[in-house]
Amino acid sequence: MASTSELYDDLVDEWRKGTLLASCSAQLSWDEQTYLPPGGVSHRSEQLSLLAGMVHDRFTSPHLGELISELEQHGDLGEADGPRRANLREARRRYDRATKLPKKLVEEMSRVTSLAQHNWVEARKKSNFETFRPWLEKVVGLKREEAAALGNGSGVPYDALLDDYEPGAKTADVAGVFAGLRKDLVPLVQAIHNSKTKPNASILTRRYPKDAQRTFARAAASAIGFRFDEGRLDESAHPFCSGIGPGDCRLTTRYDERHFPGAFFGVLHEAGHGIYEQGLDRSAYGTPIGDAASLGVHESQSRMWENFVGRSRAFWTQFYPQAQTTFPEALNGVGADDFYAAVNDVRPSFIRVEADEVTYNLHIMIRFEMEQRLIAGDLKPAEVPAAWNAAYTASLGITPPDDAQGCLQDVHWSAGLLGYFPTYALGNMYAAQLFETARKALGDLDALFAKGDFTPLREWLNAHVHRYGRQFPPSRLVERITGQPLSHRPLVSHLKTKFEAIYRL
Amino acid sequence: MASTSELYDDLVDEWRKGTLLASCSAQLSWDEQTYLPPGGVSHRSEQLSLLAGMVHDRFTSPHLGELISELEQHGDLGEADGPRRANLREARRRYDRATKLPKKLVEEMSRVTSLAQHNWVEARKKSNFETFRPWLEKVVGLKREEAAALGNGSGVPYDALLDDYEPGAKTADVAGVFAGLRKDLVPLVQAIHNSKTKPNASILTRRYPKDAQRTFARAAASAIGFRFDEGRLDESAHPFCSGIGPGDCRLTTRYDERHFPGAFFGVLHEAGHGIYEQGLDRSAYGTPIGDAASLGVHESQSRMWENFVGRSRAFWTQFYPQAQTTFPEALNGVGADDFYAAVNDVRPSFIRVEADEVTYNLHIMIRFEMEQRLIAGDLKPAEVPAAWNAAYTASLGITPPDDAQGCLQDVHWSAGLLGYFPTYALGNMYAAQLFETARKALGDLDALFAKGDFTPLREWLNAHVHRYGRQFPPSRLVERITGQPLSHRPLVSHLKTKFEAIYRL
Repeated sequence: MASTSELYDDLVDEWRKGTLLASCSAQLSWDEQTYLPPGGVSHRSEQLSLLAGMVHDRFTSPHLGELISELEQHGDLGEADGPRRANLREARRRYDRATKLPKKLVEEMSRVTSLAQHNWVEARKKSNFETFRPWLEKVVGLKREEAAALGNGSGVPYDALLDDYEPGAKTADVAGVFAGLRKDLVPLVQAIHNSKTKPNASILTRRYPKDAQRTFARAAASAIGFRFDEGRLDESAHPFCSGIGPGDCRLTTRYDERHFPGAFFGVLHEAGHGIYEQGLDRSAYGTPIGDAASLGVHESQSRMWENFVGRSRAFWTQFYPQAQTTFPEALNGVGADDFYAAVNDVRPSFIRVEADEVTYNLHIMIRFEMEQRLIAGDLKPAEVPAAWNAAYTASLGITPPDDAQGCLQDVHWSAGLLGYFPTYALGNMYAAQLFETARKALGDLDALFAKGDFTPLREWLNAHVHRYGRQFPPSRLVERITGQPLSHRPLVSHLKTKFEAIYRL
Repeated sequence: MASTSELYDDLVDEWRKGTLLASCSAQLSWDEQTYLPPGGVSHRSEQLSLLAGMVHDRFTSPHLGELISELEQHGDLGEADGPRRANLREARRRYDRATKLPKKLVEEMSRVTSLAQHNWVEARKKSNFETFRPWLEKVVGLKREEAAALGNGSGVPYDALLDDYEPGAKTADVAGVFAGLRKDLVPLVQAIHNSKTKPNASILTRRYPKDAQRTFARAAASAIGFRFDEGRLDESAHPFCSGIGPGDCRLTTRYDERHFPGAFFGVLHEAGHGIYEQGLDRSAYGTPIGDAASLGVHESQSRMWENFVGRSRAFWTQFYPQAQTTFPEALNGVGADDFYAAVNDVRPSFIRVEADEVTYNLHIMIRFEMEQRLIAGDLKPAEVPAAWNAAYTASLGITPPDDAQGCLQDVHWSAGLLGYFPTYALGNMYAAQLFETARKALGDLDALFAKGDFTPLREWLNAHVHRYGRQFPPSRLVERITGQPLSHRPLVSHLKTKFEAIYRL
């Protein structure tokens, strides 16, 4: 009879191999988005489908199931909060999810989403929803199958998808906290709209040469602590961060010479994700708790560096002189305060990833509501463009002129990532709550940022968030650090303080 | 009882899955050489080691062995020369090779060579053999184990390694044909050395801006028929071509602003490999005969496009005006004949990949002889630098000033590719013999090249070489096309005709 320690080591070893194999997929997916020649798309989808099936086999193997059961029944894995018990809890959670999904569905999802993403790139280029519609239908159909297969007793199929990205989160709870947030945001957006103070955002659409943007964004990512000896920055249609494995974390962005904030804040955002990946405990790599806690917590990190740091006045005290040197044509004669106001211009807009801090959350709520209806079957994929445009008109008062600026803007649905969007707004709320706590612990963060010193904040996040991986469920992790359950109030308080000053409300 | 057709389909299906999995390794290896951040090296080696073991498991599975035996005993797979019989023959050959290698050795080789290559890059940069020596010792040790495990009854361990790259080739036969070649080359090199005609090669070391080199080389690769919609060109320490899968073939090069031929002919060379990969029969992908025939035949294609086409007078009739426009600073006032002579400058040099057509083969013979001694155990890795320098002094009359320009110049040994070098010189001989035949079939190739028309040659190669993959063993393929067994005479004849004219011998 095997000892607890032997069983546990066996479990961890199996898990590590599965993780290592999955990391090969991560690298192939990164390549697919960055450097794959168009002719290689079909072969890549075959590769990813094969790997997805093999990874699925490993994480659903009866041997793994036996190890988990055996440890649950007989193992003594130490304290309840400790990493060994957490590994077993997380292994059980993911094993159960994985064994509920038929291998055929997993392989089909991989194959379809690989092709769908390429079709999405083309459809978006041409703003042609019709060419993408059949792919969206396939993906939604598969996600509905997935939700049904996962079940989870709640009677809400969307819960099963959400739980994959935000363990433990429930659709109804998320809808509740979003409702509170919306209630406070709407009057703020209105007040800003009515203010006579108007930042001159047009300075951000002057010419910002691409190479200079790349150099400047890299320097900023490096300054806040993203390590380029263990990472990269490349280009892709949709920006992302992929933590391929220890020492290899890759960011992407896209450059628009006539829109400075897109790439710059995009890179800070992805670098925020990257700093989390680079801050994970390496010795836990490949174990069930070796990953980031959840997408919401991940997003809290990217949003914190993008908005709470990168869009702060103090940050530009340090960086604005460099910006003026790097972009003399665009910024000659522009004052730092005007630039700061411009990067904080609040106005309803079409593209989520370019939205301001205040209205951003409304973009998320639109997607969250549409996804629930798609999964419930109340909304057909063919109806998406009309529903999308109606929602933007109702919620933001603007109507997308075409689908490229409407329902084709995001990669997520083509990639099968339904249930993912709400984690962005959860991330904003986590970020505010964590930042409030960090400020209490570290004192005058603005004074540090103004000197270009981002190390104390990064190290605080390393110590309190990153290194624990998934040892605690996300809601618990945040409560443990901040002493409070998740609330929309710190975010609202941050937004009010900041934007009342900028807009003189 | 399964029918022949069921068994055969099962065999092909298994083989395809193994090939697809191996193609994931190919992509990860490409990335390792091009874009992997330094911090990710160790994780990448773990990934490659895992995949190598899994690929090995597939190609050595008892089920595969049974299918092969069953088909050999009972199957009627049609005519002897047909693709089905060839698939079975090739499956047997590779299954036997693979099952002789312990999985542990395969995984260890993958792990060690991944790390060794990174150590080689650093060692080469610093021209420090001592830091690379322990890795060379490990690799040679593992290759000796591999040769012993493979055995092959000939009593010559090197035969077993050579056969991996050039199926059916024997060390003694290769040594014989090399001896014939050397006998004819030495007086030619001597006559060129004594000639009063001296090309002015210094025009090639003027300033050739990197971006312009890249654009010009891409245009040339495209013109000879490499398809960039199904391929790429990137940079790496050692240039290579990797056919990752159908529709995805990747070339690399390295640029030196003060040395035009390095990148330009390097790209033509790799594009020649790429045109072969792109010309394989797609429907045979993943079957045992779906690959290129051998490394020697592969090299015949790269060498043909690099030297027989790219270094011909007719090629530059088409390309020289473009070269002058692209590199005005370097080529202003330089005549086309002088440029042609310069790119055909023959002189003993240190770096193989930059060597001229005539002396190139002597570089190969040095490596071929050293490898035999390393594998036989007659030469210790620690003795390599001294032996290398002595061989260059004896054979080419020049002594490398440091190991970066000596025994550290090639990636092959760090990658475990012992037995590979001789295929380069075999490739030169195959190229000459095939080109002679193509010229007979297609008429005045020079007239076509001078018009920039490379399609007839490429299509002839597609039809006679590429599309057959491994259906015929390499020596048989060449004999079938040319009507003659491999001989050094066509190469000697080509070199004499060309260089007697350039050097007015």
